[in-house]
Amino acid sequence: MDLTNVRGIVFDVDGVLSPSTIPMDSEGLPVRLMNVKDGYAIQLAVKKGLKLAIISGGRSKAVALRYRSLGIDDVFMGASFKLPVLEQWMEQTGLDASQVVFVGDDIPDLHAMAAVAVAVAPADAAWQVKEAASYISPCAGGHGVARDIIERVLTAQGMWMDDEHAFGW
Amino acid sequence: MDLTNVRGIVFDVDGVLSPSTIPMDSEGLPVRLMNVKDGYAIQLAVKKGLKLAIISGGRSKAVALRYRSLGIDDVFMGASFKLPVLEQWMEQTGLDASQVVFVGDDIPDLHAMAAVAVAVAPADAAWQVKEAASYISPCAGGHGVARDIIERVLTAQGMWMDDEHAFGW
Amino acid sequence: MDLTNVRGIVFDVDGVLSPSTIPMDSEGLPVRLMNVKDGYAIQLAVKKGLKLAIISGGRSKAVALRYRSLGIDDVFMGASFKLPVLEQWMEQTGLDASQVVFVGDDIPDLHAMAAVAVAVAPADAAWQVKEAASYISPCAGGHGVARDIIERVLTAQGMWMDDEHAFGW
Amino acid sequence: MDLTNVRGIVFDVDGVLSPSTIPMDSEGLPVRLMNVKDGYAIQLAVKKGLKLAIISGGRSKAVALRYRSLGIDDVFMGASFKLPVLEQWMEQTGLDASQVVFVGDDIPDLHAMAAVAVAVAPADAAWQVKEAASYISPCAGGHGVARDIIERVLTAQGMWMDDEHAFGW
Repeated sequence: MDLTNVRGIVFDVDGVLSPSTIPMDSEGLPVRLMNVKDGYAIQLAVKKGLKLAIISGGRSKAVALRYRSLGIDDVFMGASFKLPVLEQWMEQTGLDASQVVFVGDDIPDLHAMAAVAVAVAPADAAWQVKEAASYISPCAGGHGVARDIIERVLTAQGMWMDDEHAFGW
Repeated sequence: MDLTNVRGIVFDVDGVLSPSTIPMDSEGLPVRLMNVKDGYAIQLAVKKGLKLAIISGGRSKAVALRYRSLGIDDVFMGASFKLPVLEQWMEQTGLDASQVVFVGDDIPDLHAMAAVAVAVAPADAAWQVKEAASYISPCAGGHGVARDIIERVLTAQGMWMDDEHAFGW
Repeated sequence: MDLTNVRGIVFDVDGVLSPSTIPMDSEGLPVRLMNVKDGYAIQLAVKKGLKLAIISGGRSKAVALRYRSLGIDDVFMGASFKLPVLEQWMEQTGLDASQVVFVGDDIPDLHAMAAVAVAVAPADAAWQVKEAASYISPCAGGHGVARDIIERVLTAQGMWMDDEHAFGW
Repeated sequence: MDLTNVRGIVFDVDGVLSPSTIPMDSEGLPVRLMNVKDGYAIQLAVKKGLKLAIISGGRSKAVALRYRSLGIDDVFMGASFKLPVLEQWMEQTGLDASQVVFVGDDIPDLHAMAAVAVAVAPADAAWQVKEAASYISPCAGGHGVARDIIERVLTAQGMWMDDEHAFGW
């Protein structure tokens, strides 16, 4: 897996940034979880100039607030179909497929994963998604998969644990 | 296990759709969890015409809202005894026992499980329930057991990952 | 371990009925978890006439409401020292040490555990507590340790899965 | 690892006292978890005269309230860089580096960990942190790492499970 050319990373939320099993609130709506080591990597990647985006089928103010606070401006919610949203984002950002990573865990992610250079699946993704992935992370969804892929990309590009930005937050 | 004849699937909540260990709210009432991969399978099964139902001993507005939003209209709560509720549902829907799956995890589910063709137990069900099951899922309660059985039923019937409905939500 | 003589079971809360790692609310107070299979066993044990009690160092309205709804009337909170509370409860109920089980997970439980016939530790109890236990459950705290010991007691006394009470709730 | 000289222990929060994966509230802010066996050890260590502190990059009223209730007066939040906060705390308390343990789990902790005698990492710390640690606990973050190191320090100094304080709370 050559990651030296990667300029953008797109994340699904449920089963990727947040685990597959989560609480429901009193209205039966999902309460997402976060991983703090993902958080460190995301804010660092933004400072290093990677373009990050979130494309989720769900709708959650909390998710948007959390990831915007870490520097992800492009948070797309309510995306019943993810491929057109991904294609529009690549056009807007000027990235082409060879520069993009998509991290997904379930069948609605498959078309978007097939449209980019690097398709990443968490360790507990649906088996069909793991079969289609270029890379299966050792981390389960919500348990560091974003940290894992960002660390690999920044390391490949000489930007992980250099003096600038790494040791603070 | 022949699943080609299955037309209906009935789920218990606690220990099946939601894990056995869950938070309590400030009034000491259970806060259920959900699994997002279960969610994908449930909405797809409804679109494909399977009849789904929930029969729970508990009472939870959140559970009813969550699963109705995924398309399950038949959500029965407060069922101290599950077999009569199951029998009434089969009569209403016109399904007979040979067409029905019941997924349960504990002793109050045993009579209902004995009354249908396919009795499914999560991996962490009570041992007496696992002994009585036709199929023990590799997934624990709240961790994908509904996804597992629905995927098996729809696959057996040629309706999993076909072009219609699968790749969106 | 002979359980035929057991007439009372006393539970600690944190690390026993609820796991050792739990959320905190916005005031920094612990949010306890519950196990639904524990719940089934507790309400059944009460119906079968066992005397159950909770002795906790913490204070929680939610815990009191939850376990009173399952039939445990004797819920003692804020017990900095558990042995005197246990001794007073045994006096009130007329049980002697040979009839009582105490389930504890940490060092403040040791004196109470030493004062009864059967001392039970969850699988993840402090090692000193496991060393002192008559029985180490395969279940971790909050993950079925109450179910495990109650099932063993009622089975030893011929009251588990008999026709009365078992198959409803 | 010689712990007989330790007089102070400093904890990071996220990934150390609280697990790496945690819920978010409705505003997308992290909801920390606590470990009750950590809690027992912390209040005991304070009573035994150890100096404890928390240095966190985050800001949380709940965390401050929880750990102040256990006796930790020195809770430093919003510390983008942890080393200067640690150095100031050592100056205030009169402790020198040879007397201090720092428990951290991620890259922003590395400079502080390098500045003290004993650097502790949870079992699931970032691999770079585990490489830099003097001691890797068998406990994951939020699952007893504070208990583990405090028990080791107090045992080395003959103050664990002595008659004073141990058996109550």
